[in-house]
Amino acid sequence: MAITLRQTDPGFEERFKAFLGTKREASPDVEATVRTIIDEVRARGDAALIDYTQKFDRADLSTLGIAVARSDIEQAYKQADPATVEALRFARDRIRSHHERQKPRDDRYTDALGVELGSRWTAIEAVGLYVPGGTASYPSSVLMNAIPAQVAGVDRIVMVVPASGGVINPLVLVAADLAGVSEIYRIGGAQAVAALAYGTETIAPVAKIVGPGNAYVAAAKRHVFGTVGIDMIAGPSEVLVVADGSNDPDWIAADLLAQAEHDVSAQSILITDDEAFGKAVEDAVERQIKLLPRAETAAASWRDFGAVILVETFDAAIPLVDRIAAEHLELAIDDAESFLGKIRNAGAVFVGRHTPEVIGDYVGGSNHVLPTARSARFSSGLSVLDFVKRTSILRLGPDQLKALAPAAIALAKAEGLEAHGRSVAIRLNM
Amino acid sequence: MAITLRQTDPGFEERFKAFLGTKREASPDVEATVRTIIDEVRARGDAALIDYTQKFDRADLSTLGIAVARSDIEQAYKQADPATVEALRFARDRIRSHHERQKPRDDRYTDALGVELGSRWTAIEAVGLYVPGGTASYPSSVLMNAIPAQVAGVDRIVMVVPASGGVINPLVLVAADLAGVSEIYRIGGAQAVAALAYGTETIAPVAKIVGPGNAYVAAAKRHVFGTVGIDMIAGPSEVLVVADGSNDPDWIAADLLAQAEHDVSAQSILITDDEAFGKAVEDAVERQIKLLPRAETAAASWRDFGAVILVETFDAAIPLVDRIAAEHLELAIDDAESFLGKIRNAGAVFVGRHTPEVIGDYVGGSNHVLPTARSARFSSGLSVLDFVKRTSILRLGPDQLKALAPAAIALAKAEGLEAHGRSVAIRLNM
Repeated sequence: MAITLRQTDPGFEERFKAFLGTKREASPDVEATVRTIIDEVRARGDAALIDYTQKFDRADLSTLGIAVARSDIEQAYKQADPATVEALRFARDRIRSHHERQKPRDDRYTDALGVELGSRWTAIEAVGLYVPGGTASYPSSVLMNAIPAQVAGVDRIVMVVPASGGVINPLVLVAADLAGVSEIYRIGGAQAVAALAYGTETIAPVAKIVGPGNAYVAAAKRHVFGTVGIDMIAGPSEVLVVADGSNDPDWIAADLLAQAEHDVSAQSILITDDEAFGKAVEDAVERQIKLLPRAETAAASWRDFGAVILVETFDAAIPLVDRIAAEHLELAIDDAESFLGKIRNAGAVFVGRHTPEVIGDYVGGSNHVLPTARSARFSSGLSVLDFVKRTSILRLGPDQLKALAPAAIALAKAEGLEAHGRSVAIRLNM
Repeated sequence: MAITLRQTDPGFEERFKAFLGTKREASPDVEATVRTIIDEVRARGDAALIDYTQKFDRADLSTLGIAVARSDIEQAYKQADPATVEALRFARDRIRSHHERQKPRDDRYTDALGVELGSRWTAIEAVGLYVPGGTASYPSSVLMNAIPAQVAGVDRIVMVVPASGGVINPLVLVAADLAGVSEIYRIGGAQAVAALAYGTETIAPVAKIVGPGNAYVAAAKRHVFGTVGIDMIAGPSEVLVVADGSNDPDWIAADLLAQAEHDVSAQSILITDDEAFGKAVEDAVERQIKLLPRAETAAASWRDFGAVILVETFDAAIPLVDRIAAEHLELAIDDAESFLGKIRNAGAVFVGRHTPEVIGDYVGGSNHVLPTARSARFSSGLSVLDFVKRTSILRLGPDQLKALAPAAIALAKAEGLEAHGRSVAIRLNM
């Protein structure tokens, strides 16, 4: 049973605040372990990778090889179900088309004083893509992380994925190949992050590391941040469904469960203005849970973190939606577009009754790597922008320098930076 | 004396690598102290801010007030030199015009299948701006951090600045006012970062924190990352000047010194194809240093981190320039535009002999908050994009859902996510 919060109840604000503040994930202190692993990889390179992989993944890279070979990828295609490979291709093409529109444009112009200014975007040279092992080894996530990098024009897209017991999900290799990944290594954990950041004999270092991972991976990324760039630290997934009483409760329940099945720490929230509908959805959730192979996970998530929030009007829901700042927001209400126009914080919005969030996970075309745990208040989903960087350009002639010099020199002086002023003045014989 | 590296020397690669790897700043382990400070501010709010400010800044906020009042700002205008205020206004207007061009555009379109996709940009609601105290309390940096936030449409721009001995540089207050800062608090250090991230009785929390600071501030930002967004951790400043023998050695020396005077950890590098010119610049540096009020700082920076790199041709310099990935790159060579077209990694490029980097520090219009310590390989200078976030939008009708369903269901199944498949199938009576 999820909790129910009624906006008009006295004490709602306090309960809602507590709900927002709920920590859904333990953060084990793995800092010391991670530091040792990173130091070892920096000191001993490939040898450390082989040792840690033997220990943590029970795989012998001294015989398997650190790098995945072309023949391994061919083999993966043979092992994969052809219909699934076709679905991956379909998803790949849709994701690519959408991301093509995200490429930023260069800008170069001359202002009224004749000063030339500009911004130029270039791709990051090499990017590392972390792919978790085991059940969280999702081929769709490989597409979502690699395609924006490819569209951006990244030269080297370097994937790491732990081979638990020597095995990598063949669909992960196929997805990597379809998405233009250029190198794949059979490593995971903090040791893989260290190898990407600092390089080893086999692996040339990259400039940025993206992709989800466990607590060790997250701590390692935090640790190497600065030496390389990193993406957001991903938390457990969440969906917020805003739905009126005209929906089929079974559809909405299915959407809530699609999120809940991910992880016991996932979160599904329903906001509705119709108490009877809310109850009907809860009943449908209980019925449907029993049909799921991952019933236990979904039930735990719904029980511990699920919520039904009752509002008088959807207008009154807007500040709540913005405070929740959900990774995924479904709007299954009549005037969804107008509601969309009024909200500010959400990773991705799924508009209307025929847009289940799951479409965005796979084949919508938009990216499924989205800000979790309320970070949509300040950050965005993964995009081409994460794989490019901007260089600003300034160009003056003697006249422009003369025009700008007095203010520059005045400010340099005010800041006590004499040499700053001189570097301008010396060009004007001032 | 800076070091000299000659690209054609045997052993150059090794020496260049060592040069690139030189750590210019100690990273003291302040983690434990910072953690305590953050915990204290979370637990005791304003009272902790008052205690820490008494201890670290020798200022009594219980009488001064945590918040800077409007009358304090009026007073600052009266104390400030009118010509400097005019220069700040001039800089403000130029910075604002340039940043107006950086506003990202929303995108909404319908693809061939009738699927509606989109990206919508919205401003972050509240942003914290850290301004260091003491000699590093630069009014120009206030403009550079606050104006992009204002242009982005951030509602609350919250500035914190330590008041050492109770005093804040009046020009910092004036710059904040000119740049549209909405709240100012007399606090600094890790306690200010904690207050911005978690809020206190007086200070409402923000969603993102930007601005440079010392090791404590950097560690605190790293610590609260996730709860709020942060900008890059700023390192010491650097300039790379690429110059041929046609330059006046005194001009180039002045540019190298403008960087060196910032900080003993600052770095100035000259790449030239003309050995005699390189020598002349070194001589000019030695001559000019003596004229500077900050001679000692500049001399230490030039001695410890300065470098002259001799190349045979400027084409041969391109890979070196990309590997250095300088925060500031000056191109004082004949065909600077063509060189610019060939390089990839630089925070900002100053093109031609009449564009000293200092213009970009103050009045060029572009931002002076730029990626340091080789991070231009993967990140960009501060811009309007740092104060907005993107929500992706997806909208399907029944026909579109039908068209996308088979691939989505196939992928959900392949990933073992049954409830994902169900949330699509249930809408199609599949």
